[in-house]
Amino acid sequence: MTPHEHIAAFGTIEGELRIGGMPLSRLAARVGSTPFFAYDRGLLNARVDLLRRLLPARVELSYAMKANPMPAIVQHLATRVDRIDVASTGEMQHALDSAIPCDRVSFAGPGKTPAEIRQGVAAGVVIEVESPTELRRVVAAGEDLGVHPRVAVRVNPDFAMKGSGMRMGGGPQQFGIDAEQVPAVLREFAGTVEILGFHVFAGSQNLNADIIAEAQNRTVELVTRLAEHMSSPVRYLNLGGGFGIPYTEKDRPLDLSRVAENLAELVDGPLAERFPEASPIIELGRFIVGECGVYVSRVVDRKISRGKTFLVVDGGMHHQLAASGNFGQAIRRNYPVAIGNRASAEKDDDAVTVVGCLCTPLDLLGDDIELPDAAIDDLIVVFQQGAYGLTASPTAFLGHPAPAEALI
Amino acid sequence: MTPHEHIAAFGTIEGELRIGGMPLSRLAARVGSTPFFAYDRGLLNARVDLLRRLLPARVELSYAMKANPMPAIVQHLATRVDRIDVASTGEMQHALDSAIPCDRVSFAGPGKTPAEIRQGVAAGVVIEVESPTELRRVVAAGEDLGVHPRVAVRVNPDFAMKGSGMRMGGGPQQFGIDAEQVPAVLREFAGTVEILGFHVFAGSQNLNADIIAEAQNRTVELVTRLAEHMSSPVRYLNLGGGFGIPYTEKDRPLDLSRVAENLAELVDGPLAERFPEASPIIELGRFIVGECGVYVSRVVDRKISRGKTFLVVDGGMHHQLAASGNFGQAIRRNYPVAIGNRASAEKDDDAVTVVGCLCTPLDLLGDDIELPDAAIDDLIVVFQQGAYGLTASPTAFLGHPAPAEALI
Repeated sequence: MTPHEHIAAFGTIEGELRIGGMPLSRLAARVGSTPFFAYDRGLLNARVDLLRRLLPARVELSYAMKANPMPAIVQHLATRVDRIDVASTGEMQHALDSAIPCDRVSFAGPGKTPAEIRQGVAAGVVIEVESPTELRRVVAAGEDLGVHPRVAVRVNPDFAMKGSGMRMGGGPQQFGIDAEQVPAVLREFAGTVEILGFHVFAGSQNLNADIIAEAQNRTVELVTRLAEHMSSPVRYLNLGGGFGIPYTEKDRPLDLSRVAENLAELVDGPLAERFPEASPIIELGRFIVGECGVYVSRVVDRKISRGKTFLVVDGGMHHQLAASGNFGQAIRRNYPVAIGNRASAEKDDDAVTVVGCLCTPLDLLGDDIELPDAAIDDLIVVFQQGAYGLTASPTAFLGHPAPAEALI
Repeated sequence: MTPHEHIAAFGTIEGELRIGGMPLSRLAARVGSTPFFAYDRGLLNARVDLLRRLLPARVELSYAMKANPMPAIVQHLATRVDRIDVASTGEMQHALDSAIPCDRVSFAGPGKTPAEIRQGVAAGVVIEVESPTELRRVVAAGEDLGVHPRVAVRVNPDFAMKGSGMRMGGGPQQFGIDAEQVPAVLREFAGTVEILGFHVFAGSQNLNADIIAEAQNRTVELVTRLAEHMSSPVRYLNLGGGFGIPYTEKDRPLDLSRVAENLAELVDGPLAERFPEASPIIELGRFIVGECGVYVSRVVDRKISRGKTFLVVDGGMHHQLAASGNFGQAIRRNYPVAIGNRASAEKDDDAVTVVGCLCTPLDLLGDDIELPDAAIDDLIVVFQQGAYGLTASPTAFLGHPAPAEALI
């Protein structure tokens, strides 16, 4: 998708990018300082509505809080999705502070300590165990607290989701229990603790609907095989997610209809037949919040060095690690960037390079990009920043102030 | 350098790694929680002493606080180095809270806002301007405050330091004013503001003494040329730094004697002759603090997945972005890792992979490395973590608690 298409998704007003109905420069005045993250509540709702409309009614939607744990977003989504997934006890506390019931919170992630598992068992959330060790800790915490733990097994599938931003299944992994080890683990713990079901997660940030559909088909086959080793009906069935969003100009949006069609066949077919007591869960983070958010910084300096024009902004990689190309990317590619206060202006003929205020050449937000002619005080917008932005960045690096966040 | 060599640098006691004279397990008990960063005061002092002994007496040592802004380290170094360099007004406040005099604090970095420059001028620190725009802001702030600003020009040299971890000079850059533009800038501002001198920084994290020496020679040639355009004697001469430390097993330590010899020739020769009123400054961050620090986390789980053994620790890339390979590295290489509470134990035959507790495959601290046979509760140490560790990492990612820091 091009920056122009991203501008169109938000819309413009008075020649400026519109966020939450407000021209960007007015929003910047409301926030009171740059840089800041802004999330458009209307776009967030529209994304949830789209998922509700296209995905089968029986599918439950889980929000993976790791994508964006801003309290206002968590509180807003808590009344609009069916479940929340957390990756730490810190995130768990946020979820428990929301309206979501505790048994609709899942707690996943490798390396859960005995103390963290005890917190999760006491909270009554579904603990997705990643190893037999964690399962033993769950049993011990349940006995100690006199509580029946809610627990599911995270499975490391025997396949990967090809072409994913991050491959998280297949081969040796720190995530989950290898599929082939699961029957023995179920046998070992039968009678000790009730295991509700499974979580299978094969990859993330995938834009290919066919690959996602294939991974979902294989996931259903896998859990069908594993369910034969369960002593009680499967009541929890987290099929993962992995729906991607387009970051670079070449990326095309995911064909959600295609994914939904395949899922409908699974829901009406094998899932209804084999798992009548489990609503299948699709767990999404980035796909729900990623596209509703932008990162806004202000041009502080414009300089020409040996023929190259630099716009220096008051933000940077300390808030935008992924956009700088340092969050797992093998090759840095430009994220979509625009001048938000002149969103309708024509592009200048000459390319510019947008850099942040950190004293490192890593602090690069847009390399040789086409923008309208920009001046000091203009507002630079980086799109697709609703997920893995602020919390996935080294905010303390070089001691600049933390950015504001606003949900409008 | 091998992990064994790093263990030897700290020493062992009772079979454990020794930090600040204490066995690691006792230090962990003193800190009270894992993960944590620990910095050895003795090693820190030894590094400063080494620099004092080898570098010419006339050279002033500046500590680049961005490498590690822990208040205890800043306070400790403030009485042992000659100057402190800061990269933001946040860092500047830390420096001003120390015993270092304000005119011995330098403030560098692109994108300084008018408000930040006003703070710097009011504080009386040396502002290293990165552009004519910043110089205009310095003049305006000085007039507004009725203060004579202390200001130097950061120069983007017409050469780069080859083989640096980060190239920060030569070609188009957001850093400094291009060398060839400096004479015109000096002319433009003559009579408006007194410019004290220059800062030239050509690269960082370099392990090749010959290349550093060559860059220093070229820097002296460059400032000698530029000084001809000054209307007053040069009083400030920051020659940069760039001294690297060995991270991977293949890296060999920098030959500091070789760098010092060359610097002595420059100090006694052209620098004494052309710049009698300026003590040359060498600015170092990583080289001063990097090797005195370790990152300590605890093994929470040990699991075998499809033949591969994983140690899952309670820390990870949220504190160790560079060790995970996501801080500007094109290719991830293992940092030196050891089991700190069994530092004298023999290596096991089988390799293990050390991963953090984050729910992402990026969270990798040691890939297929040889360690003594490790169990749950063992303490995993990552070496070379005194610089660009905690503050250069996305600590809020996934909502885990912040690590402790201790200077022992």
